Amino acid sequence: MTNAPQSAVVLLSGGLDSATVLAVALGEGFACHCLSFDYGQKNRHELAAAARVAAAPAGGRRADSHRVVRIFLDAFGGSAMTESGIAVPKNAVPENGEANAIPVTYVPARNTIFLSYGLALAEVVEADAVFIGVNSVDYSGYPDCRPEFIAAYQAMANLATKRGVEGNPVAVRAPLQTLSKSAIIQLGTRLGVDYGQTLTCYDPVGAEGLACGECDACRLRRQGFAEAGVADPTRYAGQ
Amino acid sequence: MTNAPQSAVVLLSGGLDSATVLAVALGEGFACHCLSFDYGQKNRHELAAAARVAAAPAGGRRADSHRVVRIFLDAFGGSAMTESGIAVPKNAVPENGEANAIPVTYVPARNTIFLSYGLALAEVVEADAVFIGVNSVDYSGYPDCRPEFIAAYQAMANLATKRGVEGNPVAVRAPLQTLSKSAIIQLGTRLGVDYGQTLTCYDPVGAEGLACGECDACRLRRQGFAEAGVADPTRYAGQ
Repeated sequence: MTNAPQSAVVLLSGGLDSATVLAVALGEGFACHCLSFDYGQKNRHELAAAARVAAAPAGGRRADSHRVVRIFLDAFGGSAMTESGIAVPKNAVPENGEANAIPVTYVPARNTIFLSYGLALAEVVEADAVFIGVNSVDYSGYPDCRPEFIAAYQAMANLATKRGVEGNPVAVRAPLQTLSKSAIIQLGTRLGVDYGQTLTCYDPVGAEGLACGECDACRLRRQGFAEAGVADPTRYAGQ
Repeated sequence: MTNAPQSAVVLLSGGLDSATVLAVALGEGFACHCLSFDYGQKNRHELAAAARVAAAPAGGRRADSHRVVRIFLDAFGGSAMTESGIAVPKNAVPENGEANAIPVTYVPARNTIFLSYGLALAEVVEADAVFIGVNSVDYSGYPDCRPEFIAAYQAMANLATKRGVEGNPVAVRAPLQTLSKSAIIQLGTRLGVDYGQTLTCYDPVGAEGLACGECDACRLRRQGFAEAGVADPTRYAGQ
């Protein structure tokens, strides 16, 4: 079995982080099955970006497949990302080191649900790993982005699945876990990611879905490119 | 806060076990929000049974709400319960004590996904617990029905959620965990469950969805009523 090509499920939002994770998985030689979620997010341009990223080559390789699964978190409400009555905040990232503040953009149990679908697909397609682009440096306010969450998810997954019972568990991989935004951009640039295909903005503008340049995600992305010393290919609205 | 009425999300399939769990939660005084899953199961009569059970009183109380969430496990395939090319097996429960055999009816990561939606809803409606009717006695072949899975899920949920971070985690409750089918039926009968509203059969017959009386689930149910010394209200096909 050691010579069999390994395969992975890669959770793909269409953003900078998950595009980098896909390149990491491709770079390690995994055959990649991308999985995106249509969870009723106001930001419909994300799914178009996910499709572009899944189709784009990175380092001369590209993903084997891309699935979009509709999930109905919007029926539950409770987050600015899905509930139309809650405004997406600008400039809400804590500047004062309050790492435990949980942003209003937090979607209840989102990564738990996303990983669970990833785990299910991994069992079905017999993938050896699920890759997720969580990062505890720039978004430390989300509880389900922390290393201790990923470790606990792995422990649970080992007990949840047929593969785990059989001693061949699906690995839960979060290769960006401890990287800063600029380190992620440097890594992806080395691996050949075309960041021009990605969309990070929480609140894109117009039919083309240009980045607003003002939301937390845009600010962190712009700052990341500057710190990485990499030219920012993002098309910002009004430029 | 100690005098505030507690509320719970109850995962409700419409079967005997989850109807009993709902009665347990109601009996403990929880305001109950029932959650059922339309996961493309061939057995569409399950959802009708779930609606009946959610509306039925048990011990003079009934659930506050019932939601049905469509989830797309069927797009992944991989189980007899969702994939039309795989026959639902009759008499496949191991008779020889092979507790580790995993039935072909296993749905990949099913309880992991169901609990994750339950956790999300619990955060949104500020419920204090998620109740699930897993049972490791009669279905020990499913990895995600074992006590060690539920414990690992609780540990993960404590780290995944805003409530967990705030020191007020959502409890994952599996009150049937160690009960035999006959003990479950005796418990539910004491709590006033109307088992005539429930549907257990994997392969119901005709427009009314009568129990086939032959599948594993029917056999275990029938045997459970006999062992419990409780009259079986199930309407079996051909009787």
